[in-house]
Amino acid sequence: MTIRVGVLGAGTVGGALINRLLADREAIRLKSGVDLEVRRVAVRDLTKQRSFDLKADRITDIAMSVATDPSIDVVVEVIGGLDPAGELVLAALRSGKPVVTANKELIATRGQEIVEAAKRAGVSVMYEAAVGGGIPVIRPLAESLAGEDIDTVSGIVNGTTNFILTAMTNEGQGYDEALREAQRLGYAETDPADDVSGRDAAFKTAILASLAFGERVPPWEVQCEGIEAVTAQDISAATERGEVIKLIGSAERVNGVVKASVGPRSLPADHPLAGISGVTNAIFIEGPSFGRLLFTGPGAGGQPTASAMIGDLIQVASRGRGPRQRSPHDPKPKRQVLHR
Amino acid sequence: MTIRVGVLGAGTVGGALINRLLADREAIRLKSGVDLEVRRVAVRDLTKQRSFDLKADRITDIAMSVATDPSIDVVVEVIGGLDPAGELVLAALRSGKPVVTANKELIATRGQEIVEAAKRAGVSVMYEAAVGGGIPVIRPLAESLAGEDIDTVSGIVNGTTNFILTAMTNEGQGYDEALREAQRLGYAETDPADDVSGRDAAFKTAILASLAFGERVPPWEVQCEGIEAVTAQDISAATERGEVIKLIGSAERVNGVVKASVGPRSLPADHPLAGISGVTNAIFIEGPSFGRLLFTGPGAGGQPTASAMIGDLIQVASRGRGPRQRSPHDPKPKRQVLHR
Repeated sequence: MTIRVGVLGAGTVGGALINRLLADREAIRLKSGVDLEVRRVAVRDLTKQRSFDLKADRITDIAMSVATDPSIDVVVEVIGGLDPAGELVLAALRSGKPVVTANKELIATRGQEIVEAAKRAGVSVMYEAAVGGGIPVIRPLAESLAGEDIDTVSGIVNGTTNFILTAMTNEGQGYDEALREAQRLGYAETDPADDVSGRDAAFKTAILASLAFGERVPPWEVQCEGIEAVTAQDISAATERGEVIKLIGSAERVNGVVKASVGPRSLPADHPLAGISGVTNAIFIEGPSFGRLLFTGPGAGGQPTASAMIGDLIQVASRGRGPRQRSPHDPKPKRQVLHR
Repeated sequence: MTIRVGVLGAGTVGGALINRLLADREAIRLKSGVDLEVRRVAVRDLTKQRSFDLKADRITDIAMSVATDPSIDVVVEVIGGLDPAGELVLAALRSGKPVVTANKELIATRGQEIVEAAKRAGVSVMYEAAVGGGIPVIRPLAESLAGEDIDTVSGIVNGTTNFILTAMTNEGQGYDEALREAQRLGYAETDPADDVSGRDAAFKTAILASLAFGERVPPWEVQCEGIEAVTAQDISAATERGEVIKLIGSAERVNGVVKASVGPRSLPADHPLAGISGVTNAIFIEGPSFGRLLFTGPGAGGQPTASAMIGDLIQVASRGRGPRQRSPHDPKPKRQVLHR
């Protein structure tokens, strides 16, 4: 049976997702058994030229009508930001629709409320694409490591700043020059503030910390410093020490309290995160039982992010079907806050 | 509610799992919401001293009585090998019990039959621990990438041989010397044949290939060469070329046919798998949409393997509870063979 998908937003990620769903519908169905149909798309500006080929009657500028449309089975939110994304996601959940989102700001800020609304409605909210782009890290953290004590989670979770720092290190560029290069290649926005200030990384770090430690870590509790103040001198001094400067988001539990931060850190050259270059992201998780895990891959970009969302869509569809597990009984409700 | 676990086998991995479940029961319950009780354990030799503290009436040498015990909710199989593990797993599934296994040989060889038996019974079979020890790679491959075209999957999936090759490369040791060192440190068995011949890696490669390409790749179709013939001269010649010799399991689709192989390969020093040293494992997955993903971590050992199995146990328990998803309808059955 077909899963009718409503997409809220059609920017870089939304456009990539819609194009992929249209082009690969049959391939995805053959591989996964799930037939994903783009039923409706909500955009801000109906007059804008779109990269995807969808009939006009499937496109609307009234996002709420898609979020609550009874003919839609799953809602994908790729608008970004808190408002109106938050109200749309909550409305979709209240209408009994599972939600797949790439919105790190929303999940970091209102994740608890959203997960609780999903539980009340008996549906899933999935956000693999919110951290690490195309890297499957949310699912391993939330599911594979669900019973594990975690000592630290840390990572390079912003590709723009890692590209800039890599260019400063490898090419000897200054900060401004490296930023302009990143902008020229499309790796940095015209207004790069969200990336270079560490704000984007702080949202992702808050999500990772909440999952790793099973308690709410709001983004305003992530101590945050960007890379604007990193100079060519800082970089060359680090190189002389045999170290590498990276923008690291990290979290650990200190005396029972979760401490999370984002900032430029000087890492020894043999640190697992020291060799991650360019726009690649990597997340490093350490724990007493499983040891040290490193997940590396493309941290951003329309295609990898769309891939993560398609994985979520298939999962949402698959978990809703088939016989309910027979044996194990219902365990007690989870204590974890940001867990699906 | 409590999930009553029956464990078949109490060797290195079984013992580590049982000890962990006994020691961390409350911590796992608090973190995951799932209370895992070791209800019964099947061992081969009742007289043998055990590392875990379990009452004698919970231990039996009649494994089938555990596999089919109505008072057990989930069966964990850590006996290894095809026989009697296969009949026990099938009996457990037929009794309506989900199964968690670390048995790469069994899944590689009889995975299709086992997955089909699980489907018929309406329960799960999970085998995260069968490949990459404590690295979550089965779940990302089977779920996160369920809709993705995959170009290649390759990896260092045997820690023993990677330890030996690393010692030969870094310490200039010969093969025999490096093997003895691995045996002394407990990284290689007294009879190292399964590891050094590539047989263990071939089972894991068959599983990865089946999942990546959605079709059955039996282990006897994996072209397999071990590391016994790798000499100190081969290693130093590779070093001179700026390359590193690694035992690589890999699979790709060539003209519509999946080709899988295991063998020593000379990799350029900047290849993602070239820097993986010692007993660490790493799996590298490439595809047109998500790009290049690398999963790195401990590939073996009781503790990491037990961690992977606990993740599976929690998942098996969690998926069986809560309301069934409301929205999406049942899609067509999957074409994939080794998919849960």
